[in-house]
Amino acid sequence: MDKLNGLKRTSYCGTLRMSNVGEKVVLMGWVQRSRNLGALIFTDVRDRSGLCQVVFDENTSEEIYKKAETLGSEYVIAVEGTVRERSSKNKEIPTGDIEVFATNLLILNTSQTPPIYIKDDDDASESLRLKYRYLDLRKAKMQGNLFLRHKVTQLIRNFLTEKGFIEIETPILNKPTPEGARDYLVPSRVNNGKFYALPQSPQLFKQLLMVSGFDRYFQVARCFRDEDLRADRQPEFTQIDCEMSFVEPEDVMSVTEEMVQKIFKEVLDVDVKLPLQRMTYKEAMERFGSDKPDIRFGFEIKDLSDIVKNCGFSVFENAANAEKSSVRAINVNGFEDKFSRKAITKLEDVAKTYGAKGLAYIKFTKDGINSPIAKFMSEEKMGEILTRMEAKEGDLILFVADKNKVVFDALGHLRIEVAKQLDMLKSDDYKLLFVTEFPQFEYDEEEQRYVAMHHPFTMPMDEDLQLLDTDRENVRAKAYDIVLNGIELGGGSIRIHDSKVQEKMFECLGFSTESAWDKFGFLLEAFKYGTPPHGGIALGLDRFIMLLAKEESIRDVIAFPKNQNAICPLTSAPAMADEKALEELGIKLR
Amino acid sequence: MDKLNGLKRTSYCGTLRMSNVGEKVVLMGWVQRSRNLGALIFTDVRDRSGLCQVVFDENTSEEIYKKAETLGSEYVIAVEGTVRERSSKNKEIPTGDIEVFATNLLILNTSQTPPIYIKDDDDASESLRLKYRYLDLRKAKMQGNLFLRHKVTQLIRNFLTEKGFIEIETPILNKPTPEGARDYLVPSRVNNGKFYALPQSPQLFKQLLMVSGFDRYFQVARCFRDEDLRADRQPEFTQIDCEMSFVEPEDVMSVTEEMVQKIFKEVLDVDVKLPLQRMTYKEAMERFGSDKPDIRFGFEIKDLSDIVKNCGFSVFENAANAEKSSVRAINVNGFEDKFSRKAITKLEDVAKTYGAKGLAYIKFTKDGINSPIAKFMSEEKMGEILTRMEAKEGDLILFVADKNKVVFDALGHLRIEVAKQLDMLKSDDYKLLFVTEFPQFEYDEEEQRYVAMHHPFTMPMDEDLQLLDTDRENVRAKAYDIVLNGIELGGGSIRIHDSKVQEKMFECLGFSTESAWDKFGFLLEAFKYGTPPHGGIALGLDRFIMLLAKEESIRDVIAFPKNQNAICPLTSAPAMADEKALEELGIKLR
Repeated sequence: MDKLNGLKRTSYCGTLRMSNVGEKVVLMGWVQRSRNLGALIFTDVRDRSGLCQVVFDENTSEEIYKKAETLGSEYVIAVEGTVRERSSKNKEIPTGDIEVFATNLLILNTSQTPPIYIKDDDDASESLRLKYRYLDLRKAKMQGNLFLRHKVTQLIRNFLTEKGFIEIETPILNKPTPEGARDYLVPSRVNNGKFYALPQSPQLFKQLLMVSGFDRYFQVARCFRDEDLRADRQPEFTQIDCEMSFVEPEDVMSVTEEMVQKIFKEVLDVDVKLPLQRMTYKEAMERFGSDKPDIRFGFEIKDLSDIVKNCGFSVFENAANAEKSSVRAINVNGFEDKFSRKAITKLEDVAKTYGAKGLAYIKFTKDGINSPIAKFMSEEKMGEILTRMEAKEGDLILFVADKNKVVFDALGHLRIEVAKQLDMLKSDDYKLLFVTEFPQFEYDEEEQRYVAMHHPFTMPMDEDLQLLDTDRENVRAKAYDIVLNGIELGGGSIRIHDSKVQEKMFECLGFSTESAWDKFGFLLEAFKYGTPPHGGIALGLDRFIMLLAKEESIRDVIAFPKNQNAICPLTSAPAMADEKALEELGIKLR
Repeated sequence: MDKLNGLKRTSYCGTLRMSNVGEKVVLMGWVQRSRNLGALIFTDVRDRSGLCQVVFDENTSEEIYKKAETLGSEYVIAVEGTVRERSSKNKEIPTGDIEVFATNLLILNTSQTPPIYIKDDDDASESLRLKYRYLDLRKAKMQGNLFLRHKVTQLIRNFLTEKGFIEIETPILNKPTPEGARDYLVPSRVNNGKFYALPQSPQLFKQLLMVSGFDRYFQVARCFRDEDLRADRQPEFTQIDCEMSFVEPEDVMSVTEEMVQKIFKEVLDVDVKLPLQRMTYKEAMERFGSDKPDIRFGFEIKDLSDIVKNCGFSVFENAANAEKSSVRAINVNGFEDKFSRKAITKLEDVAKTYGAKGLAYIKFTKDGINSPIAKFMSEEKMGEILTRMEAKEGDLILFVADKNKVVFDALGHLRIEVAKQLDMLKSDDYKLLFVTEFPQFEYDEEEQRYVAMHHPFTMPMDEDLQLLDTDRENVRAKAYDIVLNGIELGGGSIRIHDSKVQEKMFECLGFSTESAWDKFGFLLEAFKYGTPPHGGIALGLDRFIMLLAKEESIRDVIAFPKNQNAICPLTSAPAMADEKALEELGIKLR
């Protein structure tokens, strides 16, 4: 193998243009392919900037030509030569007008035939891609994704710094927390029998930094959750974590939307109009059946319970009269003819996966009303329904009658499903909004107690504080999510800054005073020494980048992800540990 | 407690000046102190920018005045008022020319008397400071340190980005590594019996990113070492981690020194002249007795072995004639009168802690030579020594005769010690250099084998590759450290990019082929598919910031450090884990 011996690259391959013709250049990169035509060798050289064609011909010295004949795919080479215009131009690549005539060639490393192709359209299985991740990352698309990630992260850091935020690193080795997801634990060698926990978020530290008076904090923070993995989950993930003092929800939302606007402009050249829409959780549920509504399209939910209370159709009547139940519908307006009886049966299957017992419908065809429920109802009632649904010829109305939770869930997902089938979910249409006033609590059926919907440090709305003892279900929190095309980009809240309210909150969540102090005593103690009102937000970076890169999986925007078994197929982590190490840690395998 | 109710801060306290007189302002912050003079209340309000005096007087409404009378230290308040010129100015603080006459006051939170004073000269014990870290961090000095850290980190990120580096996040959950320091282990729940390890550095991943063609990588990377702690060690620390492809040592050093120059200029307004001095390891040891020489002052080491080989003084003769031993000295020139016999005895104690058996000396006083060893030597030999040492009246020469290792260690530390006693170690004198050509191996007496001085992925110097089998001790590596005032800021190397050389290196380090492949197979495999020549560097961020902030301990530049028992006194991490959690992880306590 040749050595550099002081040779320096002058240009990245993908940057050469007609304006460089005549220049002497030094390229360094990988052989994408090399074609030996006998008297001519064409070698495509690749680096992170793209490809450039290098030519060896009868004017090349014999020694160099012979060397060039040995080139194989993915060999690492350095080429000295002169940029010249191509006789036969290639419009497919940015450097297609030129080529480099080689006067010298160094082979810096050879390569065996790689197990996956270095092409964006390579169809290797994901397990092979992850095992040979260093080859997979040579693909232009994967390189682009990581460059995009770097660009966005830099944008965020510079934006927040300009806004007076200070990035502060908080510890990775933390105290185990009893609320939320499962912690990753790290046995302590110095303190045998005790464990650190990897942070699920820097929540408590960022609140303590507000107690310290830093006023505006952020961190691009690595977080960890030992949960079972799905396509958009990883054991470790990165969040843009922010906290501000002396603020109300509007202040946090305002700086967040400005940041998001900047990212869309600089990365995608998309103009986002501010302020973003604010929609209460209640409205989001009632209109879209979701706390992360996709507002790229309509088909909004309407409540028909008052109309159908005594309509004659018992399924509707029962739901309309039962507690916490209702009859609601969406109007897939204008697309009646796109949904056959069979297609509607499939939609019914979708509704059923969300707990609905069935899916009633009305097709408003050019021949009039076509609906299995028509026969149960008076024309007058039908008329009232059609009026409420603003139905006209060509519309399809879908009804669910059930407990509210099921109604919202089923109709919310049906909205998305029909939009998907109608190809209305354009990935370059970006609709952002804030959902506000989330419920403070949700009832955990398994644990038979109220748990915090956001987290236990979230401040209830002032006017709902009085409901903490009497009506927990209706306590709203000063919490907000930012939502993009039906996906939660991030969420935050104003925090409790009064130790009495915080103690009350722990009580509501079923903690004894003793247990609250045992777990969170340092926070309750801190609150006694002048804690300012404060709040913040956290955005999931991986998912945000995935959406900006129009990828389907966050694994495609993470350099070295784990697979769905939490294994790194490249390094085969996790692995066995030395017995001696376990002994020092004071643990053994069961 | 009062609520903000939409009130917004208009200014940070510390920013108000005479030019703001007449402005209506809203300040939000903490009561530094409040003095009630009966008809007047002076309240110093503090936020992250500094202090501002607020006044309540006979023109304040009775309700507000009464409220102001209740203010105590560290209460959190919002003040509306008007900026006016002070009658009695305070030259001690930047806002000392003005005060704010309060027209409204909100008490946003109260405070108990804090257990430590919020003053830079507070003398609370470190354990109390760490327990109440959120109060300790309110001090101007601690706030300054973390703002400095943020500023430097931003500078580094923007500098490297401009230089074409891309920041890529590498995993925290890794495969345990058998070389180097002790790993922190994380038991896997999904793969019971197996463990992740927290990274000691992103070394292998950054090399794989070079295999992937990213060309220039960096990361502000959290790293972990489960070692016993000293003043400048923490279980987790942050390093500026860089790697570049198609480079030789000069390329890495050049971009590093440019970055360091920029930091010194922008943070301290100190001009660092480039290129920094490069000094081989051999020269550093021979002149300064250290691989991290402090070159702010002279007192360089000189070898006298040839002169004293048969000088008549047996201690010198023995060392001069023995293998790997020598007699060397430093000339503390001009300071003979600063070191009494007693002071020299103390210096001898220092030399002894580094293994020296004694400390010979010559004082060149105005009355001539004063030395316990003079009587053993001819005048001629003494003359040769004085000539070699360039001795003149007023000089003090200190000798150590021993194995080279002891000689360098003892004289190297004596240099520093006398300079310290002479108050020559100015903290605002910054002397940077690169030490190069480190030994590839060092012999580990405990393990009875050669271990890598840098790490097993370091490339030997080309001309020394042939010595791998025959003379390991003299193999030099393409490794370099950057040193500031006797402290290692960082180090790096050109890496091996040839799988055969890498396998050979593992063999030299005592790995069987099987074990090398078991531990590092993914790297050896990667090297088969076109790995470019590459190298990099890593700088310890914590220590760098500590030096820039002129602090003595890295704990003063880390928001939430651990104490020397690896405990966080604030949160009391580590802590007991739930039995159920351990069960899921497949481990139990011994």
